[in-house]
Amino acid sequence: MPDIKKILVANRGEIALRVMRSARELGIKTVAIFSEADRNALHVRYADEAVCVGPPASADSYLRIDKIIKTCKDLQVDAIHPGYGFLSENADFAREVEKEGIIFIGPSAESIEVMGDKLSAKSAVLKRDVPLVPGLDKAITDVAFAKKKADEIGYPILIKASAGGGGKGMRIVEDPADFESQMDRAVSEAKNAFGNGAVFIEKFVTSPRHIEIQVLGDQHGNVIHLFERECSIQRRHQKVIEEAPSSCLTPEIREKMGQAAIDVAKSCNYYGAGTVEFIVDEKLNFYFLEMNTRLQVEHPVSEQITGVDLVKEQIRIAEGKALSYKQEDLSIKGHSVEVRVYAEDPQNNFLPDIGRLKVYKRPQGTGIRVDDGFEQGMEIPIHYDPMIAKLITYADNREEAISRMIRAIDEYEIVGIQTTLSFCKYVLQHDAFTSGDFDTKFIEKHFQASDLDEKVTDIETEIASALAVKLWSERQKKRTAQEANGEKVSLWKKNRL
Amino acid sequence: MPDIKKILVANRGEIALRVMRSARELGIKTVAIFSEADRNALHVRYADEAVCVGPPASADSYLRIDKIIKTCKDLQVDAIHPGYGFLSENADFAREVEKEGIIFIGPSAESIEVMGDKLSAKSAVLKRDVPLVPGLDKAITDVAFAKKKADEIGYPILIKASAGGGGKGMRIVEDPADFESQMDRAVSEAKNAFGNGAVFIEKFVTSPRHIEIQVLGDQHGNVIHLFERECSIQRRHQKVIEEAPSSCLTPEIREKMGQAAIDVAKSCNYYGAGTVEFIVDEKLNFYFLEMNTRLQVEHPVSEQITGVDLVKEQIRIAEGKALSYKQEDLSIKGHSVEVRVYAEDPQNNFLPDIGRLKVYKRPQGTGIRVDDGFEQGMEIPIHYDPMIAKLITYADNREEAISRMIRAIDEYEIVGIQTTLSFCKYVLQHDAFTSGDFDTKFIEKHFQASDLDEKVTDIETEIASALAVKLWSERQKKRTAQEANGEKVSLWKKNRL
Repeated sequence: MPDIKKILVANRGEIALRVMRSARELGIKTVAIFSEADRNALHVRYADEAVCVGPPASADSYLRIDKIIKTCKDLQVDAIHPGYGFLSENADFAREVEKEGIIFIGPSAESIEVMGDKLSAKSAVLKRDVPLVPGLDKAITDVAFAKKKADEIGYPILIKASAGGGGKGMRIVEDPADFESQMDRAVSEAKNAFGNGAVFIEKFVTSPRHIEIQVLGDQHGNVIHLFERECSIQRRHQKVIEEAPSSCLTPEIREKMGQAAIDVAKSCNYYGAGTVEFIVDEKLNFYFLEMNTRLQVEHPVSEQITGVDLVKEQIRIAEGKALSYKQEDLSIKGHSVEVRVYAEDPQNNFLPDIGRLKVYKRPQGTGIRVDDGFEQGMEIPIHYDPMIAKLITYADNREEAISRMIRAIDEYEIVGIQTTLSFCKYVLQHDAFTSGDFDTKFIEKHFQASDLDEKVTDIETEIASALAVKLWSERQKKRTAQEANGEKVSLWKKNRL
Repeated sequence: MPDIKKILVANRGEIALRVMRSARELGIKTVAIFSEADRNALHVRYADEAVCVGPPASADSYLRIDKIIKTCKDLQVDAIHPGYGFLSENADFAREVEKEGIIFIGPSAESIEVMGDKLSAKSAVLKRDVPLVPGLDKAITDVAFAKKKADEIGYPILIKASAGGGGKGMRIVEDPADFESQMDRAVSEAKNAFGNGAVFIEKFVTSPRHIEIQVLGDQHGNVIHLFERECSIQRRHQKVIEEAPSSCLTPEIREKMGQAAIDVAKSCNYYGAGTVEFIVDEKLNFYFLEMNTRLQVEHPVSEQITGVDLVKEQIRIAEGKALSYKQEDLSIKGHSVEVRVYAEDPQNNFLPDIGRLKVYKRPQGTGIRVDDGFEQGMEIPIHYDPMIAKLITYADNREEAISRMIRAIDEYEIVGIQTTLSFCKYVLQHDAFTSGDFDTKFIEKHFQASDLDEKVTDIETEIASALAVKLWSERQKKRTAQEANGEKVSLWKKNRL
């Protein structure tokens, strides 16, 4: 494939800027697309060219495949980088782009499809002996058979409705004596709720950690891993603090997980940057969860500890070049932590707190990186994910990376909007975090809104907050209704980015 | 020694902020001092406490030892960090501070004194067999003796007046046949100009590079080196672009220079952070120039390639702790480049271009660090060194660090003042720089003001510039007069920081 000369970034905010910066360092021209809500956004100003693709709603702008492809044609764009979210894991989009002779900077449409479906992903990785959470591979209603399997798998056991989702129709059974009655109840509840009594049973992972492995593959069959990211600190099932390396892995487990991630990538002939997510239990048993076939929000921590610019590698891979690195070239250098700065109020159940960045001053100094898409005076638009910035620190060791992060949080000046910074500082100072002894239930176990200092607000901010909460709940209602109708929901759709 | 709880930073601008950030990460309180010209400076706002120590002139503020010590007493300060410039290499200051029971974060007064005098430094390092530029160790007037020595040393030969300085009374002799006549002339000129006909002769290093080694020593006799910094790109004998590692050293020479630097440090029982400067010729012969007994402006590039926070190590050493690193812990990770952003006009002989930062937006993204002491709307004061910022990039290799720097320079928005950024970009794109084949004469060989694009100015900026040039030339006149009277000149005194 030829060298790429001009990239359209089919995204907005910090990730659009992130991609454009690497493109510029490679001497590649950039094209931004933007919705009417983003006319003054930084990614628009940064690009060499920028085109408005529609009204604020993502479905009418950032998700408009036709307009994006037309823009590419009009501006002689060679390649599209999808960022994360939006169209990044849309196989149809990847296929259509390639059909038009434009390079999709990402994996093949086939890889996206295989990993985009839980069942096809599982069956692909099973051929490579990648560990999955032990359980039945089919939904059943037969209680006696289920009991036998549950005894084989070992307790605690999770029973979940085949047609359920988001925690609905789920039961945990600790004691084998309770299994049959719980299973009976689960089946009948599932019948009532979903019209389908089939349930899965699987091992319930106690004190789970969410640990993922960054991989890179080229179009010549080479795949390497860039070690792990620890992403267990979450709120509303969304990551909020990530770090690399994880404080709990041993070199042996790291090596095994890395190899398993490479196996997952190879199971779908993966190329590009991707992430293999695992759930890890207290005894460091790890099980494959899913593969994200794109760049992750939290990719910077891997960049900091390896020195690899993941976006540049994505571009080189898309050009058909071999990977710049072999596995043995890579080693873990120091430690990196990322906190996501969301326009959310941690004292009000992390509800979005949209408004204007009246004061916005980034922290600086050695070992600090801020990836954002805003500057002082700008509004955080209501239409998109409410992430303001990613604040990343790195240092020679974990303790120093954490103390640097606390210093950086103290230095970050954001006035006009409540953010997750105070919550992040609380976590970073908590014994459970500093000791490394935590899991995905950190908030439930260790956090109450009253743990944070009283927030400082003014009347304007309070009114804006109230409005934001109202808009948020309306949107949630609409979304629930759409989902109930089986409609595609395009805004803030993904739970995990 | 006890743990330090509160540090006074006897400095201003970026280095004061740099020191305070590391102190804060260590949980240490900070005290700023400031002159009346710096009342609104960022270092004043960043510190936990701040005290005005006098009018703008450094001699009346930042150099007032009595006021600094009084401030320490008043605020129960444990330790003083001197930064660079100002009092950082003043042995009397170090001695007085220690006498008052305050910790001086730096080497002993004795080490400062030994290395502060060229002759005592040379005699100290000679005992350790550190290579010096071959030449006579005493000034002479005997032409026949000089000729014999010159033949031994080898041509070209540099003849310099013992009482001269700053290039005055210097002659280069290429051809042995010319030596006697040139020597005669040098001696008589020196007599006329300085009333003292004594001259030194030494080997003239052609195509010299300025390469320095960062060292760290503790109070228990341990000394390590943190590899080299290449500082050959200079204007007006002042560094303007630095990088680590150097593009010309071999691993063997690097190892030898590192050991030589450790020997230099041990020759004066050095502890703290220090830098050993060498001149390196085309054949990679290296010769000791001097040791700077403090943190250097360009220390960040060493931090980036080693992961060591030099200020934190300085503080730990001052607390009497052993070094956190052994030599074998350190390796070179990637490549780092620093450009100094001066308020100077490269199209007007690098004269200062003081004024207001009407627009000031820093570049961002992976591998970028900006150390500065200003923000948008601030004035660059005329009273001090006109450095606005240090822009540092780091990446996996030299080529990427350079392309990242060019991207960062393009992204840096500074309106209202001419800066050295355009010059730096020119250098970074020049074949002589990218190939690594350059020396300290880069500007003479490769740069003319007309090489830069026409600058954009407005009438206000032009008037301010004209005024700045006038003030600068007045200051230079005054300084020359003071020096002629044998007075101490305190402002912008050091040629190299």
